[in-house]
Amino acid sequence: MNILFKNIDVVTGDGEVIYNGCVMVSDGVITHVGRDMPEHGGVIQRVVPGRGRLLMPGLYNTHTHLPMTAMRGFADDCPLDKWLNDYIFPVEDKFDERCARICADIAVAEMIRSGTVSFSDQYFFCDQIAAAAACAGLKANISRGIVGGEDFDPATDTRLKEQIELYDKWNGYDGGRIKIDFAVHAEYTSCPAVWQAVADEANSREAGISFHLSETKGEQERCLAKYGSTPTELFEAAGLLGPRSYAAHGVWCTPEDIALLAQTGTTVCHCPASNLKLGSGIAPAAAMLAAGVNVSLGTDGAASNNSLDMFGEMKLAALLAKGSGLDPSLLPAAEVVSMAARRGAVSQGRENCGLIREGCDADLVMINTRIPSLTPNHEPYSTAVYAAVGKDVEMTMVRGNVLYEKGEFKTIDWERTREEFFVYAAPKLFRD
Amino acid sequence: MNILFKNIDVVTGDGEVIYNGCVMVSDGVITHVGRDMPEHGGVIQRVVPGRGRLLMPGLYNTHTHLPMTAMRGFADDCPLDKWLNDYIFPVEDKFDERCARICADIAVAEMIRSGTVSFSDQYFFCDQIAAAAACAGLKANISRGIVGGEDFDPATDTRLKEQIELYDKWNGYDGGRIKIDFAVHAEYTSCPAVWQAVADEANSREAGISFHLSETKGEQERCLAKYGSTPTELFEAAGLLGPRSYAAHGVWCTPEDIALLAQTGTTVCHCPASNLKLGSGIAPAAAMLAAGVNVSLGTDGAASNNSLDMFGEMKLAALLAKGSGLDPSLLPAAEVVSMAARRGAVSQGRENCGLIREGCDADLVMINTRIPSLTPNHEPYSTAVYAAVGKDVEMTMVRGNVLYEKGEFKTIDWERTREEFFVYAAPKLFRD
Repeated sequence: MNILFKNIDVVTGDGEVIYNGCVMVSDGVITHVGRDMPEHGGVIQRVVPGRGRLLMPGLYNTHTHLPMTAMRGFADDCPLDKWLNDYIFPVEDKFDERCARICADIAVAEMIRSGTVSFSDQYFFCDQIAAAAACAGLKANISRGIVGGEDFDPATDTRLKEQIELYDKWNGYDGGRIKIDFAVHAEYTSCPAVWQAVADEANSREAGISFHLSETKGEQERCLAKYGSTPTELFEAAGLLGPRSYAAHGVWCTPEDIALLAQTGTTVCHCPASNLKLGSGIAPAAAMLAAGVNVSLGTDGAASNNSLDMFGEMKLAALLAKGSGLDPSLLPAAEVVSMAARRGAVSQGRENCGLIREGCDADLVMINTRIPSLTPNHEPYSTAVYAAVGKDVEMTMVRGNVLYEKGEFKTIDWERTREEFFVYAAPKLFRD
Repeated sequence: MNILFKNIDVVTGDGEVIYNGCVMVSDGVITHVGRDMPEHGGVIQRVVPGRGRLLMPGLYNTHTHLPMTAMRGFADDCPLDKWLNDYIFPVEDKFDERCARICADIAVAEMIRSGTVSFSDQYFFCDQIAAAAACAGLKANISRGIVGGEDFDPATDTRLKEQIELYDKWNGYDGGRIKIDFAVHAEYTSCPAVWQAVADEANSREAGISFHLSETKGEQERCLAKYGSTPTELFEAAGLLGPRSYAAHGVWCTPEDIALLAQTGTTVCHCPASNLKLGSGIAPAAAMLAAGVNVSLGTDGAASNNSLDMFGEMKLAALLAKGSGLDPSLLPAAEVVSMAARRGAVSQGRENCGLIREGCDADLVMINTRIPSLTPNHEPYSTAVYAAVGKDVEMTMVRGNVLYEKGEFKTIDWERTREEFFVYAAPKLFRD
């Protein structure tokens, strides 16, 4: 199967723009990127006319909790402890597998609609999350967050068992489209025995390691009071840091933490909207990048954003860095696109992904720039980061498969999903 | 002409939600809002089915520079002085009336598409801006920013003359749909003689007064060094503050400034995206509201945002207040809707506007919530502020006139505008 994008402005994802270019996709892989037509003997099954269009790498949403989409807008504008204890936890207790799948399907539809091609999810009901990604055609790294106190026993812990079963069932599905990682939920919900068990299981499989890190000031302070060390220092000592590891948030990381994260090759997934919305603060994303940390982007769950649109996250990340640093040159647009695509792919251990380059997976997003809000389009990286929103996406493609195009989902029956939510999930979760 | 919205969830704009309600519009005015059908003897020309739809007040973008849409994405990520001197000013020098009108038309299209019903613009080529708003069916308060040094003479100043001619030509057009205000550009680009002249001209006409205020730290510091007073204090003494006055930005206003603004009834137009993007900082919007200031919202020009989507501005305002104040209960969703609608209308001196209430102008926005990104819709104010984007708007109505509906502009020929920009404006502004 060969698809040719012609006469299209290409944002490669590593700072370059190819104006009026050609991109050839053959069997799911990008085989040509340039101003000239490709030399190609085979049949081209589809030519996509690219005038007035921008082609960019598909986006990597590297911190999500898909089933939490059920709680989008359910408990906004209230303090974190009330949000969790009075609203989120009671609903989570009522989840079953079908609810989780329905809500994951809503999230997957939203992500595909807004140009996301891959996500990193840490939650429970991971089997349903993996199935949602598998069916919809998305890439995903999925992990079961392990929590546990002093009585944690790796030999008998049901969550760890669930995580290992998940790995055995799904890891490597469809040529690695689905990957299973291991996860410590967070320092404050676990203990050294959990950290050790997760590090051991993950490292023996060379799997990814996910965790929440220094999201709130209180969490950072209580950890220092309890252990005399920061969560980053503790996790480093436990073998949880490294190039396969990715930490969500990092809002309150110290300069020493940041140096450790850089030195070990650990990714930090910056979630600016969620950090602001929950009153957690502003992560030092520009300082982390300057220190050499691989910083990716994520929306967090829809309950704390309330959107899974990575375009919104790109703009917010750039703006926040400039405004909080009082320097408009911080986090320029091309750097932000890299965070949202290539750096996200790196955090997921996906080598040939996140760029529009020959040999990379054809994970692509096409935007129509011939609309008022994207006119003029002086600089395509600026257009993508500061002016575009997810709703401007005209086509989302993963490995050469079109998942969404001009109002139509190819792999999702949206009306059925919506109906199932209102007939089954909403009564179960919210009306008991 | 009577239009009835049926079975629709109504965000009234003052904190109330009417689920499954009815809204009747007669001759451009809202004549019924409630759960019941209106008692109405006349013919209803149109019934809008509202299932799965949310109806909210149209949005007030209270700080814009419409022709600057030409520079959207033209000079991002660079320091403010370079941005202005190397990019913005040289292009502005090349503007002519036709360029200004074309670019204003692009901006107007973007605003209508994203649910804005009224805007407050301070720029030059104001005649073209007024014409763009008049033709498109939008409301607008327009002013010509006056600058001037020690040699300023109100008797001979061409800008002031232009401003007065503008007032005489346009103020009160179409029953007050277009209003002309008076403007001091900013403290740092003017002098006491300018302040006095603008205050005199505006106050003698009971017209609005627009100015930029304490946008950057340097501006605030230099003013203090020069006069020993803040811009707010100077403007208060010059008679520029009051309930008809609206100040853009206010990022560096002191607590004493805020008290003065509250006391005089002066509006502050909060422009969070522009303030972040230019590295100016974060305005204390929540503190201003708590002190009793009328705080409205604005995008600023597309060159420093780079969007005119007020939904983006609503979300950002709420998130920034929470994140910078480390308190998720700051600026709750209903308060932000009020800032974007009712408080904006108040700043423009428009009494019966900005709410969905009987007797108010029928300036309405309808959103389709049956899409993945707005599912579920637990709380309509939350949905509007945290989940929706301008592209979710299905209908924009001003005074009962539909200006946009389901992909179609009723008053704008978008393809012609776009072509004119590329054939006439772009070569003139950027290729000389």
